[in-house]
Amino acid sequence: MLIVMKPSATGSEIDAVVKVVEAVGFRAHPMPGATRTAIGITGNEGPIDGRRFENLAGVAEVIRVTKPYKLITLDLRPDKTVVRVGDATIGDSELAIIAGPCAIENREQAFAIAKTVQKSGARFFRGCVWKPRTSPYTFQGLGEKGWEIMSAVREEFGLKIVTEAVEESHVDLIEKHGDVIQIGARNMQNFSLLKRAGRSRLPVLLKRGMAATLEEWLLAAEYIMAEGNYNVILCERGVRTFAQHTRNTLDLASVPAIRRISHLPVIVDPSHGTGTAYMVTPLARAGVAAGADGLMIEVHNQPELALSDSAQALTPSQYLQLVAEVRAIHELVSSNGIAVSESQHAPADR
Amino acid sequence: MLIVMKPSATGSEIDAVVKVVEAVGFRAHPMPGATRTAIGITGNEGPIDGRRFENLAGVAEVIRVTKPYKLITLDLRPDKTVVRVGDATIGDSELAIIAGPCAIENREQAFAIAKTVQKSGARFFRGCVWKPRTSPYTFQGLGEKGWEIMSAVREEFGLKIVTEAVEESHVDLIEKHGDVIQIGARNMQNFSLLKRAGRSRLPVLLKRGMAATLEEWLLAAEYIMAEGNYNVILCERGVRTFAQHTRNTLDLASVPAIRRISHLPVIVDPSHGTGTAYMVTPLARAGVAAGADGLMIEVHNQPELALSDSAQALTPSQYLQLVAEVRAIHELVSSNGIAVSESQHAPADR
Amino acid sequence: MLIVMKPSATGSEIDAVVKVVEAVGFRAHPMPGATRTAIGITGNEGPIDGRRFENLAGVAEVIRVTKPYKLITLDLRPDKTVVRVGDATIGDSELAIIAGPCAIENREQAFAIAKTVQKSGARFFRGCVWKPRTSPYTFQGLGEKGWEIMSAVREEFGLKIVTEAVEESHVDLIEKHGDVIQIGARNMQNFSLLKRAGRSRLPVLLKRGMAATLEEWLLAAEYIMAEGNYNVILCERGVRTFAQHTRNTLDLASVPAIRRISHLPVIVDPSHGTGTAYMVTPLARAGVAAGADGLMIEVHNQPELALSDSAQALTPSQYLQLVAEVRAIHELVSSNGIAVSESQHAPADR
Amino acid sequence: MLIVMKPSATGSEIDAVVKVVEAVGFRAHPMPGATRTAIGITGNEGPIDGRRFENLAGVAEVIRVTKPYKLITLDLRPDKTVVRVGDATIGDSELAIIAGPCAIENREQAFAIAKTVQKSGARFFRGCVWKPRTSPYTFQGLGEKGWEIMSAVREEFGLKIVTEAVEESHVDLIEKHGDVIQIGARNMQNFSLLKRAGRSRLPVLLKRGMAATLEEWLLAAEYIMAEGNYNVILCERGVRTFAQHTRNTLDLASVPAIRRISHLPVIVDPSHGTGTAYMVTPLARAGVAAGADGLMIEVHNQPELALSDSAQALTPSQYLQLVAEVRAIHELVSSNGIAVSESQHAPADR
Repeated sequence: MLIVMKPSATGSEIDAVVKVVEAVGFRAHPMPGATRTAIGITGNEGPIDGRRFENLAGVAEVIRVTKPYKLITLDLRPDKTVVRVGDATIGDSELAIIAGPCAIENREQAFAIAKTVQKSGARFFRGCVWKPRTSPYTFQGLGEKGWEIMSAVREEFGLKIVTEAVEESHVDLIEKHGDVIQIGARNMQNFSLLKRAGRSRLPVLLKRGMAATLEEWLLAAEYIMAEGNYNVILCERGVRTFAQHTRNTLDLASVPAIRRISHLPVIVDPSHGTGTAYMVTPLARAGVAAGADGLMIEVHNQPELALSDSAQALTPSQYLQLVAEVRAIHELVSSNGIAVSESQHAPADR
Repeated sequence: MLIVMKPSATGSEIDAVVKVVEAVGFRAHPMPGATRTAIGITGNEGPIDGRRFENLAGVAEVIRVTKPYKLITLDLRPDKTVVRVGDATIGDSELAIIAGPCAIENREQAFAIAKTVQKSGARFFRGCVWKPRTSPYTFQGLGEKGWEIMSAVREEFGLKIVTEAVEESHVDLIEKHGDVIQIGARNMQNFSLLKRAGRSRLPVLLKRGMAATLEEWLLAAEYIMAEGNYNVILCERGVRTFAQHTRNTLDLASVPAIRRISHLPVIVDPSHGTGTAYMVTPLARAGVAAGADGLMIEVHNQPELALSDSAQALTPSQYLQLVAEVRAIHELVSSNGIAVSESQHAPADR
Repeated sequence: MLIVMKPSATGSEIDAVVKVVEAVGFRAHPMPGATRTAIGITGNEGPIDGRRFENLAGVAEVIRVTKPYKLITLDLRPDKTVVRVGDATIGDSELAIIAGPCAIENREQAFAIAKTVQKSGARFFRGCVWKPRTSPYTFQGLGEKGWEIMSAVREEFGLKIVTEAVEESHVDLIEKHGDVIQIGARNMQNFSLLKRAGRSRLPVLLKRGMAATLEEWLLAAEYIMAEGNYNVILCERGVRTFAQHTRNTLDLASVPAIRRISHLPVIVDPSHGTGTAYMVTPLARAGVAAGADGLMIEVHNQPELALSDSAQALTPSQYLQLVAEVRAIHELVSSNGIAVSESQHAPADR
Repeated sequence: MLIVMKPSATGSEIDAVVKVVEAVGFRAHPMPGATRTAIGITGNEGPIDGRRFENLAGVAEVIRVTKPYKLITLDLRPDKTVVRVGDATIGDSELAIIAGPCAIENREQAFAIAKTVQKSGARFFRGCVWKPRTSPYTFQGLGEKGWEIMSAVREEFGLKIVTEAVEESHVDLIEKHGDVIQIGARNMQNFSLLKRAGRSRLPVLLKRGMAATLEEWLLAAEYIMAEGNYNVILCERGVRTFAQHTRNTLDLASVPAIRRISHLPVIVDPSHGTGTAYMVTPLARAGVAAGADGLMIEVHNQPELALSDSAQALTPSQYLQLVAEVRAIHELVSSNGIAVSESQHAPADR
């Protein structure tokens, strides 16, 4: 961290800052300049809340230098993490596809959709049994009854089950019946839930919060990893902006941004990221072209009768067409060594 | 709800939409116009997820008419809710002031600050015993040890204790030792926690989420009220925008907006809303001038040594000056009947 | 437009609204319902500022139905506009590539870059001779001296010249020496400049404003078209959001959104859209995968010495690699008829 | 500026950065640390576009230290600028009130409103004769015909005339017939217009752009001042965010933020800042309580018949009530020396 003093700061103001720095346990390194003095700070183990120094007399600005990450960084692990779920993987050379309805509604619906998902070659089936809904008066999911259906889908179709945990007790049930724990956007900073997921043996799919900066999202992953669970998959699902032609604004630049900092795999959810069926396929293509390791797609056998998120669900035939297109793009993108050239470890291009 | 068909929609497309409307249990009222047909929908108990109709052939637009609220509305209860906490109130004629440190650090700190809070005439002492922190590597609060200190403050100074519940089990402890349950911005859509708070006998202070629309915030209050707890206090604490000169952008227009729709009291938190000490007092004045029922203010006996949020904490003397100023403004604003003239029930001004 | 009255609205309040509607020249169609009355409005030529009715007694909500567009719509012209610039095109089957430095700095720089652009097979050379800069103290462009260099590039390399007009007089000079008029993000609602460009015989490349909704952007295109110039190219270049890991947040969903409404071609600028060189190639691929008709890319022979926007400029070799990749994706995307299936005129997929 | 190298940066990478720094004319000061080297940069006159160094091999981060302002700063002029317009002032002890209709529609309308403005004791009459409108199909203002009406209002009521210049030629007309040049939000970065206003002898009221950071806004003021016109009034009018219950989100923290950096007076526009009449008065009170030097308010004799912005215009009686309320708050705020205690020059409060 660097504390920049005002040009008008007096010697005693500088001394006072140094004393506060030392009082909280760090070392201060005053560096006098032509017009102003800067004070470097070292000796901190983790990140410092530098804002405490902002109100001291004579201080112009406090600048943070060290990034607050530890476990998610390429410094720690230079190769990309491959998350293994039985014989399926996320983060490997294959494009991971997670598909299914927004919510499990009944056995017929779930089976009809699972059949389509299986047919596409995808390895993961996703459906909510508990739905976090904005209004208390809308469909909240089948709850535990949904698990019977999910278990049947898992057995019948050999698909890996991905489901959102809305509270800590849900993690227990997913551990019993499912394969991947999803933490939803609204719970990205539900730290109790993150810690519980961090103590699970199952991989965790962590969605970006609606207003989360990249740093906050990666620190949420640190919460999970700090408990010992290193199998975290990040999922970009759009952020909230002023734009109103989509439900969220899909921020695909987060894919190369994460790639540059972290070894964790990252997937894209164009269904929640746009909220509208006709946009899902173009944005799915875009996500894969940007370098995502996988996609999460909503598909429904009868979108217009879906109990939730009906506007963004694809029909089976739209979904199968999407999978064909994104596979072709993934093939193209991975064949020519693009992934390598984006890494910070690549030799400079000149 | 209103489904607007495209000018080019055919008769059979219109019929198909009518059939889907009826299939999901509503009544359809086609209204042919000069250039296009609109279809009104009735018969819905709660709100309809109208987006399901958006992708049907021939549909131009789906327009929601009914608001999704029930319990928070002025239609339900035309007079403002007064939340009573022992002999203290929020929503009444008196300006409610909730003050304290970001986190309880130790007994000396808590007592020094509580003394200042008491001196100011405020009735509520706020401090976190569990801190939701963005990074797992920063101070997380004293936890249960903090409760001993809080109980001592409550007994010694006669202040009402306001504390954030980060998980459901915390609500039990607050019910035992505290007076008001705070739900923080990061948990505004932690629906399990909202429901637990809804089953409590204690009032709930519900902070606005960082990216929450007014509607989402009010529906979070509905979650609490739907469980039977009608003592909800809303707290505007700023939203996340592109602006970087403050930690959040305080959206004071939410105060009159809520007043127009809801009977719930609303307070303003200029400490988190700005994140910087020198802005807290002007924005506290602004919040009260906009019609807020109270304020939440961070004060610390030694801000520069605080373990969290040190940049936004006021010194005791800054805090006492703030209270004097906002009381004078509150006096002015409430004396001339301003509150009344903003209500939608006031006679038209012409 | 639809005016929704409150359930409590009286007959005389409804009559008063009808009278105001008629007083401003429209026809009112009251439609009484079970719990409330809605009033339809017809007879308007262009869009109505319906907000005028919001404050009338008894009014609950005013809902706009008609979209305010005329000339940009697929209703007007069902086929995509192909903008022709000599023998080059934008909006046709070929992917249009516009490349060059942020600003023309000197003849050597411009020629070195133009050589790379020509080598890539791109048809358009872009460079600013006038730079709109946030600070008055930074490099503002070479001005008219830059035109000599641009003219030489045009003659020597046979590239079409694209340059931003910052004020009306610039349009005159571009008409004399250039091929395409760029309107920058900061001037998207500089209506005098839009009208001047609308009176030009040259095509206009209209960048999206930093905080522009889709509607505002398309209405800016309407300003140009309303003056008689139908050769408008839209350019998505990112919008301003809370996210700080990029200069702007590239909103690629605007590509399918525009495709659904408008016949105008749309291109993507990942250089300004991200602001950082290492993100440009992945986002360029994403833009083309989302269905864009072209790209605008910044390339510099010595990025680290560039006088402006140096952090986002690609080196010649990075740029050539990018072009190879996006061409392959474009080939893939256009070969399987994807573009067609996104149009609203496509047969429903079921 | 400070260039922070990666821990892994080699000596030759550090040398290469130093060479680039020197090649562009600055001095480099490498500062080796325990784990990494930082390189300070000095010798720059104005701000440096430091992003050019971001892509050099071995660079971790580039941190800007110097703020890019010169003329707007308290360093330059420690006392607040008082803008004088004849015998009226902005920035002095008196609260400045600028009021009028959105647009001049006809003589009767303008005179009726001016009479109300005069009655309130306000000194400034504002009305647009040219209207920047989002759609080309809506009312664009009376144009030069409006000036006859404005001149008559000026003569008849002794009010100072404030009007928006949408293009450079408008400044000529305002110089002839008006008193204050308004630069609107959409033109905040129309640098040609800013420079023209900077060469005028009239004061300039500079509205904040819809997506402008504080820094961009202050740099727009620098553009005007750099041409020699030091009479600039800043006007906060809300920014664009995800929030949809208001037309814009009024960012009142900008008032103390500007006060801390700049000597320029700042006013607040709650009419555009909220877009809805019932919110204007509470937010006007809030703006004054936050320390604004004045207000801009829209008032109309018949809001429901206004040709533009009708939803946000106050009736004459609402407006007169507003003025009474904000005057009382201003009196309160300025009497107890609050303005002084917010300045950075005040002695520390402890």
